[in-house]
Amino acid sequence: PTPYELGTPEGVLDADELRVVDAWWRAANYLAVGQIYLMANPLLREPLQAEHVKPRLLGHFGTVPGLNLAYAHANRAIKARDLDAVFVAGPGHGGPGPNACAWLEGTYSELYSHITQDERGMEAFFHQFSFPGGVPSHCAPETPGSFHEGGELGYSLLHAYGAALDNPDLTVFCVVGDGEAETGPLATSWHAAKFIDPARDGAVLPILALNEFKIANPTILARIPESELLELMRGYGYDPHVVSGDDPGTVHQAYAQTLDTCLDKINAIQQQARGAAQAPGPDGAGTAWPMIIMRTPKGWTCPPEVDGQRVEGTFRAHQVPLPGARTDGTHRAVLEQWMKTYRPEELFDEHGRPVPELLDLPPRGTRRMSDNPVANGGSLLRDLQLPDWRAYGVEVDNPGTRSHEATRVLGAWLRDVTQANPTSFLTMAPDELASNRLQDILDVTGRKWEVEVGPDDERLDRSGRVVEVLSEHICEGLLEGYLLSGRHGAFTCYEAFIHIVDSMFNQHAKWLQASAQVSWRRPIASLNYLLSSHVWRQDHNGFTHQDPGFLDVVLNKDPSIVRIYLPPDANTLLSTFDHCLRSRHYVNVVVAGKQPQFDYLSVEDAALHCARGAGIWDWASNKDDLNTLPDVVLAAAGEIPTLEVLAAAAILRERLPDLRVRVVNVVDLMRLLPEDEHPHGLADREFDTLFTATQPVIFAFHGYPWLVHRLTYRRANHSQFHVRGYKERGTTTTPFDMVMLNDLDRFHLVMDVIDRVPTLGASCAGLRQEMADARLRARTYTREHGIDDPAVSSWTWPS
Amino acid sequence: PTPYELGTPEGVLDADELRVVDAWWRAANYLAVGQIYLMANPLLREPLQAEHVKPRLLGHFGTVPGLNLAYAHANRAIKARDLDAVFVAGPGHGGPGPNACAWLEGTYSELYSHITQDERGMEAFFHQFSFPGGVPSHCAPETPGSFHEGGELGYSLLHAYGAALDNPDLTVFCVVGDGEAETGPLATSWHAAKFIDPARDGAVLPILALNEFKIANPTILARIPESELLELMRGYGYDPHVVSGDDPGTVHQAYAQTLDTCLDKINAIQQQARGAAQAPGPDGAGTAWPMIIMRTPKGWTCPPEVDGQRVEGTFRAHQVPLPGARTDGTHRAVLEQWMKTYRPEELFDEHGRPVPELLDLPPRGTRRMSDNPVANGGSLLRDLQLPDWRAYGVEVDNPGTRSHEATRVLGAWLRDVTQANPTSFLTMAPDELASNRLQDILDVTGRKWEVEVGPDDERLDRSGRVVEVLSEHICEGLLEGYLLSGRHGAFTCYEAFIHIVDSMFNQHAKWLQASAQVSWRRPIASLNYLLSSHVWRQDHNGFTHQDPGFLDVVLNKDPSIVRIYLPPDANTLLSTFDHCLRSRHYVNVVVAGKQPQFDYLSVEDAALHCARGAGIWDWASNKDDLNTLPDVVLAAAGEIPTLEVLAAAAILRERLPDLRVRVVNVVDLMRLLPEDEHPHGLADREFDTLFTATQPVIFAFHGYPWLVHRLTYRRANHSQFHVRGYKERGTTTTPFDMVMLNDLDRFHLVMDVIDRVPTLGASCAGLRQEMADARLRARTYTREHGIDDPAVSSWTWPS
Ligand SMILES: Cc1ncc(C[n+]2csc(CCOP(=O)(O)OP(=O)(O)O)c2C)c(N)n1
Ligand SMILES: Cc1ncc(C[n+]2csc(CCOP(=O)(O)OP(=O)(O)O)c2C)c(N)n1
Ligand SMILES: [Mg+2]
Ligand SMILES: [Mg+2]
Repeated sequence: PTPYELGTPEGVLDADELRVVDAWWRAANYLAVGQIYLMANPLLREPLQAEHVKPRLLGHFGTVPGLNLAYAHANRAIKARDLDAVFVAGPGHGGPGPNACAWLEGTYSELYSHITQDERGMEAFFHQFSFPGGVPSHCAPETPGSFHEGGELGYSLLHAYGAALDNPDLTVFCVVGDGEAETGPLATSWHAAKFIDPARDGAVLPILALNEFKIANPTILARIPESELLELMRGYGYDPHVVSGDDPGTVHQAYAQTLDTCLDKINAIQQQARGAAQAPGPDGAGTAWPMIIMRTPKGWTCPPEVDGQRVEGTFRAHQVPLPGARTDGTHRAVLEQWMKTYRPEELFDEHGRPVPELLDLPPRGTRRMSDNPVANGGSLLRDLQLPDWRAYGVEVDNPGTRSHEATRVLGAWLRDVTQANPTSFLTMAPDELASNRLQDILDVTGRKWEVEVGPDDERLDRSGRVVEVLSEHICEGLLEGYLLSGRHGAFTCYEAFIHIVDSMFNQHAKWLQASAQVSWRRPIASLNYLLSSHVWRQDHNGFTHQDPGFLDVVLNKDPSIVRIYLPPDANTLLSTFDHCLRSRHYVNVVVAGKQPQFDYLSVEDAALHCARGAGIWDWASNKDDLNTLPDVVLAAAGEIPTLEVLAAAAILRERLPDLRVRVVNVVDLMRLLPEDEHPHGLADREFDTLFTATQPVIFAFHGYPWLVHRLTYRRANHSQFHVRGYKERGTTTTPFDMVMLNDLDRFHLVMDVIDRVPTLGASCAGLRQEMADARLRARTYTREHGIDDPAVSSWTWPS
Repeated sequence: PTPYELGTPEGVLDADELRVVDAWWRAANYLAVGQIYLMANPLLREPLQAEHVKPRLLGHFGTVPGLNLAYAHANRAIKARDLDAVFVAGPGHGGPGPNACAWLEGTYSELYSHITQDERGMEAFFHQFSFPGGVPSHCAPETPGSFHEGGELGYSLLHAYGAALDNPDLTVFCVVGDGEAETGPLATSWHAAKFIDPARDGAVLPILALNEFKIANPTILARIPESELLELMRGYGYDPHVVSGDDPGTVHQAYAQTLDTCLDKINAIQQQARGAAQAPGPDGAGTAWPMIIMRTPKGWTCPPEVDGQRVEGTFRAHQVPLPGARTDGTHRAVLEQWMKTYRPEELFDEHGRPVPELLDLPPRGTRRMSDNPVANGGSLLRDLQLPDWRAYGVEVDNPGTRSHEATRVLGAWLRDVTQANPTSFLTMAPDELASNRLQDILDVTGRKWEVEVGPDDERLDRSGRVVEVLSEHICEGLLEGYLLSGRHGAFTCYEAFIHIVDSMFNQHAKWLQASAQVSWRRPIASLNYLLSSHVWRQDHNGFTHQDPGFLDVVLNKDPSIVRIYLPPDANTLLSTFDHCLRSRHYVNVVVAGKQPQFDYLSVEDAALHCARGAGIWDWASNKDDLNTLPDVVLAAAGEIPTLEVLAAAAILRERLPDLRVRVVNVVDLMRLLPEDEHPHGLADREFDTLFTATQPVIFAFHGYPWLVHRLTYRRANHSQFHVRGYKERGTTTTPFDMVMLNDLDRFHLVMDVIDRVPTLGASCAGLRQEMADARLRARTYTREHGIDDPAVSSWTWPS
């Protein structure tokens, strides 16, 4: 590789500006190469030796020059315009790029005291990268200025747009990989601009890094005609600007010019919106936000050829262009030459500190993208104003007699939460807000919508506080971006379809876990899921909509991060959600019913029960004065299991009045885990007191039954736990038929009691047969009438 | 509602054709309304009474008229052109539509003998819909002609394209919901056309059902200017044609004309490609396939207003326009009027049979889309030609001494599988084929690619047998479509990122389970996942790439459908994959290593071991003559756990030579389940023989450790199972540091043995401390040198 000539291309940059932005770019590229390869001799002051090179060469160079180019020019613009800006690296596996930029900006040294801005610090900076005990090769919580994890591709634009919401003065530079752009989540997330209000939200400038390759293949967007790509971007509603080339000087000029144009256009859009009336969709047309298509070579400035194969500008530049640099002298020599093409001697002074003009290029303080507090959202987080949930509770005189739709009750409270926090709380839903009975929120706000509104559209509003779009990915991604940048929110979704974002949840949970280990990161607001239209009530939809397995996915993540709640009625749901919105740095999963269901607990009892997380319902227990050992424990977790357990308890009370039946309800599922496995876990003693250490426990569970076993297998009484739950038996049928299909129904629970309590069994053959018959009768009734037998469906608790 | 006047609009249809296609459409709409509402009086021969109306009104009308229109016109075209065609209903919650079409075509009666094509059959047909014990409200396995489940939205186009692959004579009419189009998977799946070879594959005609609404909101694509929508479709590479209107006659003419145009264009594209040379990307330009944008009112022909609110043409038509039809006389009267606007007396004869001109409209036999064997793919399935895997096996003299990359060995076999089955086997990968070391396949074929090829692109080919695209959704969806239509394939993916398609896997598993209950459906080929770049070897990538939780998701599905294999070396991987490609109607998940790893079993031993699924490795066991009770069982499932268990066994053999150590290896994870819970489950007796009923079992597991507990909690010896696995501790580090972080390393396993075997404990304090020190030393080594201590990494089995 030979150094390039910058030349004197004409353009918006004068000769000095051009030289400095190029120098900064070279410096960042140099520092990136250094991170990937070197563990000593960072400035190449000695001839490069094998022992200077890391034994494991791990990292991705290909995407780095593009990231660094976008970063360097963003800096120029931030200074020129005093922008408040953050940077999102979609191809975040190019971690060395943003790391390098943060080091050049000084932030790295401010946050990591051993990584000083000098030769020693540079060495430590190189050494730690992808090194055991060091920092990951992707953008990660450790990366200053990043609020976007660079591992799983596809979510950069959503995080960018999420951060821009309610941040009117923020500009987000978001680099999107052209490979990343092939993913489903990214392909739909271009539409997220349709939820950006130019008056109240900030701006995102998407920069498509069209380096033409992914790992081993060209990208689709690089191999369609450019005219088609432009149509695609216009079709997505953007105003695309192409910068392409492989001559650094020319590209610098073109990029600077284009960036200025785009920022001018953003400014004009915002000025116009902020001056003008706030009606949705002026003239029915959406806003065409500018975006940049940056077509530059993959691995730009790396060796053009290695071992006789083209590398620069090809997929071979994706990871480590010279894999033999430690062991192969030729590779090492090329590496040395390559690094020297950046002319480090011009970039760093004798102490290894960036030369003054480099230090001078970036903005100051928190204007530096690596130090923008938005990227450390917790530092900006403020508590929500929460109306007292007790005032929204329903009255309960006799448990199990009157009904409410739990989510509708919650909706009234969420309405007021929304109103009380007009710029820091958002609700996301994939077109299911009303379906999940949260429509009261729409009494005080509309659904955010920045394109045309038709005559039959309802409650659309430029400044709405609800985002509805038929993409679970967009809902999740925008909310993540919103939370990561220091605000609050909730995502309500059908229970089965939350699996669509399993992987996004995983990545977010990992971010939370890893960021909790980074000393300068502050906790952010929890990610709150409200899952309704759950497995047991899919009357319209059937088998495809029956899947409670998100809980299993969630429980695989670190216990310090995840929480699961199964409130059985309206008041417990209120209390639970209040708790969730106050919590920090968790993922809270709340599963709740939207169909009319009994109220059991008064506001006061709900508060107590939720604080306990799991407790005895003495009013439903039989002959259990709480201080005698019961014959059997009937436990429930979840709305429908609670109903069936109570109905079973009522049968037992009537038919076996001498049986001591303890009814236990679990609202906080983590209580079941051992104390040393989860912060909410019950101590063994407490657990054994509640569930006994010796008596049979019939446990009716909302989800897959084995999950309860996984939570309790270390408990003394585990072998006596008999769990009923959803075992993948379903279809479009009546609510009671659904529970019968899965043996979770009251009659089967009574049979389970008879089968498990040693003193019953054969002596209760009659009752057992009655129960079996009752199941059959109930099934037959549904087949004949299409509804549940009123004898079942009109049951109430016999107080 | 009043009946519409068809009028005499001019167009491609003559007056008779227009009348008949409209009559067919009315009939299908009538039958759809009937399914949603009626359980008696199907032809309205008596005045409509409450008891004729179902007590639970479940279903979705809004999307039905659009589906029926597309279906009716497709039929005209099929007959006119003798097309071999299938129909995919993206908004498949409009189940009543495709059901109605199948009934009109006679297929329903052929497949369900009680649903005759007369009044009695019509009543049964109506009655069963969304009725307990009946058929689901969505398109489902029960729906004749459907190979696409209509529950979770987003996958219609992918299924359509998957079916078109290698089906050169097939035309797939694929209706895409405009709400569905907002999902991530659908948004990227438009690009799937770029993998369709006009010479060798069939054609998909996407029909975007732009009825402007989803459940409660307008759709994005309906509220952007039409010019923008056209640009979007052109940008995706299509040639879009708009049909819009709400006057049936005019729309019939326009749609018929447009459909003819589109089918002519498809024909021209295919003719040209089939005549011409087969080079990729003629002139660098892709093919612009036609597609239709059908803008017609949601709930078209339903009551314009109900209870003073507009319904037809609004979101309110989504489900059941007259929810009170049973209980509210006014609603019921409107329902009766509405149904009569279709003029049933013109459509059905006195016996309730469709009148002759309706019977005459559809094509005959398997040309009927409801009877096309492609939609019952199992009926077309033929066994693969599989070369004998033994010939590809590696030689193993001494176990645990020589290494191979297991997936590379498999790659050679897959290469020959690919070659031997040139039109019925495909491999999908998200740009990870070579990364997962399967690149040998590329020796005999290229990567499918129908757009331009650049000078540095490698192995792209119009007729390639590998599909690589950076979208796990596209990979999964195309493969599902390919399997559902009767072919074979495999999907190789990074282990962590397979979670991206959790939800698609769920839906496919549900389809398999439900379709196995449908008498006329034939089993299809299994969906085979090859997960590599697994949790333990993420050297480049770190924490974000570490997630073995897909196994947990898979295990929640019905045991009759799912299989999980963890082959520990190259020969066992070969044997396993051979087994998978021969299996039917399963989802097989195979997790395998791509890094060099020891070979343990010869071809013969691998065959035996895989047949057993779990067995004792006597050569690694110590003092275990297999007929004495061991002191401890060391069990492993997975590549890395096997390595660590063997290394631990070697330490124990050396240091505690009198300890009876049994080494057990599990390759078929389902063997752990009880016999009555899974067809592969070991009988308790067998299990207790293998793992003992009394001795401690130290189990090293590839995934999350609690999964093994969930599988074994019912076993006699469960309380003695101590499982090590991945517990969400990770980062970018060395391979051995990774296992240490999760206490899965050899040293910790030895400590576990000391802690659990009653006769050891305090008497082995020295060895235990040595092990703790060894861990620390190993960790320190990595921190200093960046690689694993050669003492660890160069370990081999001391034969
Ligand atoms: C969802 C997902 N699938 C696969 C990968 C594996 N992967 C890592 S980098 C990469 C290629 C990325 O290409 P692109 O987005 O174009 O980035 P760049 O070319 O700038 O490196 C792939 C497929 C991933 N990180 N995420
Ligand atoms: C992935 C997913 N998310 C949410 C839903 C819930 N849902 C069912 S129908 C529907 C609206 C569908 O709208 P569209 O695709 O336009 O169909 P149509 O208007 O033809 O009914 C929604 C959101 C779903 N089925 N799948
Ligand atoms: Mg790229
Ligand atoms: Mg629609």
